[in-house]
Amino acid sequence: MTAIDLNADLGEGFGRWRLTDDEQLLSVVTSANVACGFHAGDAVTMRRVCELAAERGVTIGAQVSYRDLAGFGRRAMDVPPDELAAEVAYQIGALEVFARAAGSRVAYVKPHGALYNRVVHDERQARAVVDGVLLADAALPVLGLPGSRLLELAARAGLPAVTEAFADRAYTEAGTLVPRGEEGAVLTDPDAVVERSVSLARSGTLTTRSGGTIRVRARSLCVHGDTAGAVELARRVRARLESAGVRVEAFA
Amino acid sequence: MTAIDLNADLGEGFGRWRLTDDEQLLSVVTSANVACGFHAGDAVTMRRVCELAAERGVTIGAQVSYRDLAGFGRRAMDVPPDELAAEVAYQIGALEVFARAAGSRVAYVKPHGALYNRVVHDERQARAVVDGVLLADAALPVLGLPGSRLLELAARAGLPAVTEAFADRAYTEAGTLVPRGEEGAVLTDPDAVVERSVSLARSGTLTTRSGGTIRVRARSLCVHGDTAGAVELARRVRARLESAGVRVEAFA
Amino acid sequence: MTAIDLNADLGEGFGRWRLTDDEQLLSVVTSANVACGFHAGDAVTMRRVCELAAERGVTIGAQVSYRDLAGFGRRAMDVPPDELAAEVAYQIGALEVFARAAGSRVAYVKPHGALYNRVVHDERQARAVVDGVLLADAALPVLGLPGSRLLELAARAGLPAVTEAFADRAYTEAGTLVPRGEEGAVLTDPDAVVERSVSLARSGTLTTRSGGTIRVRARSLCVHGDTAGAVELARRVRARLESAGVRVEAFA
Amino acid sequence: MTAIDLNADLGEGFGRWRLTDDEQLLSVVTSANVACGFHAGDAVTMRRVCELAAERGVTIGAQVSYRDLAGFGRRAMDVPPDELAAEVAYQIGALEVFARAAGSRVAYVKPHGALYNRVVHDERQARAVVDGVLLADAALPVLGLPGSRLLELAARAGLPAVTEAFADRAYTEAGTLVPRGEEGAVLTDPDAVVERSVSLARSGTLTTRSGGTIRVRARSLCVHGDTAGAVELARRVRARLESAGVRVEAFA
Repeated sequence: MTAIDLNADLGEGFGRWRLTDDEQLLSVVTSANVACGFHAGDAVTMRRVCELAAERGVTIGAQVSYRDLAGFGRRAMDVPPDELAAEVAYQIGALEVFARAAGSRVAYVKPHGALYNRVVHDERQARAVVDGVLLADAALPVLGLPGSRLLELAARAGLPAVTEAFADRAYTEAGTLVPRGEEGAVLTDPDAVVERSVSLARSGTLTTRSGGTIRVRARSLCVHGDTAGAVELARRVRARLESAGVRVEAFA
Repeated sequence: MTAIDLNADLGEGFGRWRLTDDEQLLSVVTSANVACGFHAGDAVTMRRVCELAAERGVTIGAQVSYRDLAGFGRRAMDVPPDELAAEVAYQIGALEVFARAAGSRVAYVKPHGALYNRVVHDERQARAVVDGVLLADAALPVLGLPGSRLLELAARAGLPAVTEAFADRAYTEAGTLVPRGEEGAVLTDPDAVVERSVSLARSGTLTTRSGGTIRVRARSLCVHGDTAGAVELARRVRARLESAGVRVEAFA
Repeated sequence: MTAIDLNADLGEGFGRWRLTDDEQLLSVVTSANVACGFHAGDAVTMRRVCELAAERGVTIGAQVSYRDLAGFGRRAMDVPPDELAAEVAYQIGALEVFARAAGSRVAYVKPHGALYNRVVHDERQARAVVDGVLLADAALPVLGLPGSRLLELAARAGLPAVTEAFADRAYTEAGTLVPRGEEGAVLTDPDAVVERSVSLARSGTLTTRSGGTIRVRARSLCVHGDTAGAVELARRVRARLESAGVRVEAFA
Repeated sequence: MTAIDLNADLGEGFGRWRLTDDEQLLSVVTSANVACGFHAGDAVTMRRVCELAAERGVTIGAQVSYRDLAGFGRRAMDVPPDELAAEVAYQIGALEVFARAAGSRVAYVKPHGALYNRVVHDERQARAVVDGVLLADAALPVLGLPGSRLLELAARAGLPAVTEAFADRAYTEAGTLVPRGEEGAVLTDPDAVVERSVSLARSGTLTTRSGGTIRVRARSLCVHGDTAGAVELARRVRARLESAGVRVEAFA
């Protein structure tokens, strides 16, 4: 029987501001990418999300980012490797307190936003993220794009490298994501998203933008929680996976 | 034989800015109060200070603060207890990563600046700091002023409450510090500071501003590192303590 | 014919986060208290709100705050007067660029959140806010609570002191606001809010929490825009004022 | 008689931290690039530097930066043009308050650090900086590197484009700066720096790293104030220029 993990970004508010419906999403996903204060995420929110996640048996991961609250971590930054590594470790450590206090622990790391995209190709920053993870814990899994420099370097450093796919994003023939901003980059038809999820989980394939079929390794599927209808769609994805005989469970 | 700890605030730079001569101070003190990013302290500096401290056998403590880089944590803030507790835990967790990576650990917590002064009397904030420490570690010593609400509540919660004194600050007959800003609040004669250190360590007494003698319990002496001549004075304090037969060693 | 101004807090998002429905509110109010970046308000939002306000003939005011994004400016801070004055001026200047670029100008200043409450009684901080306004413009009106130290000191310094009332807040017999957090502090019945608005505008009176009637001077009414139904309620307040023969127009 | 301006970065502290000796530098330079709070520069410092500059007849310029206190504005960031333009305008406006209060005004704009380097080549960001300047004032001079996209686009938009050179930096044959980090990028021999200053001012030429001679247009010379001996060197540069018959005066 096939198994897949569902992960989502959580705790992406800051102070007075909220973005994600953490409570609802935590009843759907199996892994929570928790914002650690650099692109979003204040200490109170981190604590609350960790408590809810622990209660519901959802695995906690550190969603690490560039230090950029004003830009929500979506602006690429030329951060020197020693700074980036230390900042990654800082974020993991801060989250670990709340995960432990809730009776759980930080079980993986996933980069956020511009950092996520950068470490697909940028050797220096990918290595810095791996160094930051190693500072925190030499056995912490790293979640990222199949084929990325990040996962390659993580694996070489002895960290479990876990692949993920996006059911609501268009893919090129080369297996990369169609960049946001391009026509059709984000799939808006819920039925299509649900069907792709099943295809990804069961056969490891999906249909590209140009109509071809490619293989995409993915131990985890990323679902989104920051748009209207997102939680409902995530619920449908999960229900359909389960009815198709896929076991939905955390990878870590 | 009497023993005393010497503690100092370290790592109080931020990014490009430096304040304390961390390298030099770490050859004098036995406990390092490391800034954790809220009033000062970036991730690179935290890492470096932890590495140096571990190398030299200096105990690492988390110097937790209000979130106020612009005010260096010196402006009292009415932070709600749940926010303050979570922010204290966040800072401890972030530092713990670097302490562990250096082969050491966070061995105590000391509030900084306006928070330090506030929790002498403010029941709610003192309790919030204790709650934050408990979130991180239910056995972590708290360093503070003898007679403070903070130490009282820490002890009640089962946390080791460690007292400290300031050799370079004037005291009232009631045993409290003469507030900065008042005439004579800070002692500037190095010889006087050195002699008070010995008196504090050996007899637990010091001379008040008005000439009386009071008892001041202190397991640790705080020395300062952010002014010209500070490191040299700290060295003299340590040398004089040792020549007076006092064992200078960490409390934790 | 009686005239009254309607003011609301606008532009209270930050980066990715939004709070107020600026577009809708700007079709209701006559004065916009625009967040200037210290408790909320990024540069892009400030620019957009100023452009919309100018287009619709809404007066632009600077909503100045403590420097506290994490606390949304709701945590009182002991900021030294010279820092507070300079920070107030900084915020006014930053907003002025966008007001001017939109063909308008900053026409008044209103403190936000904890600073608003503090300068009702705190002489030093009230004076610092006035000093900050004077740095920016020696003729800029200040909007605040009748009887507050702020308005008293503003008037003494030659700044127009403009009074405001809150139609959705309970008042004590002494004419002060019932603190948030106390039972009944915020009125939730829309009809009651609408009727109080008319009473405030036409007779300058309102019914206190204990049932008495007090006089409340108010050249402006503050309406809120950060809750569900808020814009609709503001619209009803405006419509009812106009049908009652009150001219709704900016004070500045 | 030849004239040249001397500019330096000033007010580059933040809160408790200081970097530049503003008081001393303001007795040497004719133009002050004042940090506006994004890479350095708090409101109190901005006010103080503007007051000193106005007293001494030093021209005030806005040194605008990426929003990056932790990185001192030295990390390139992919900021979208609308955000960058608005942030540039915000900084100019904030500084303008203090310049006006001191009886002066913001008389030019110079980008800082990574933004300075980026707009040499990056069309989009250069245009965004120009747009930000235009938002603030359609006649404000822009100070930058000769041949940069920034100066080209500024000139095209009708803004005075003012060139500057660095007496203490090595140049390539192509007239660009040898990047920091490369061998010999920064000249450390004070005599060489002084002689290059005179050569730049009098003949508009300097000797490249490889020994050739190139022409470098420069209406202003940038001197540094953040290293030991920097102020003394700046003084020598000014004295030598004057004794060589060069008039040292602001360009604006």
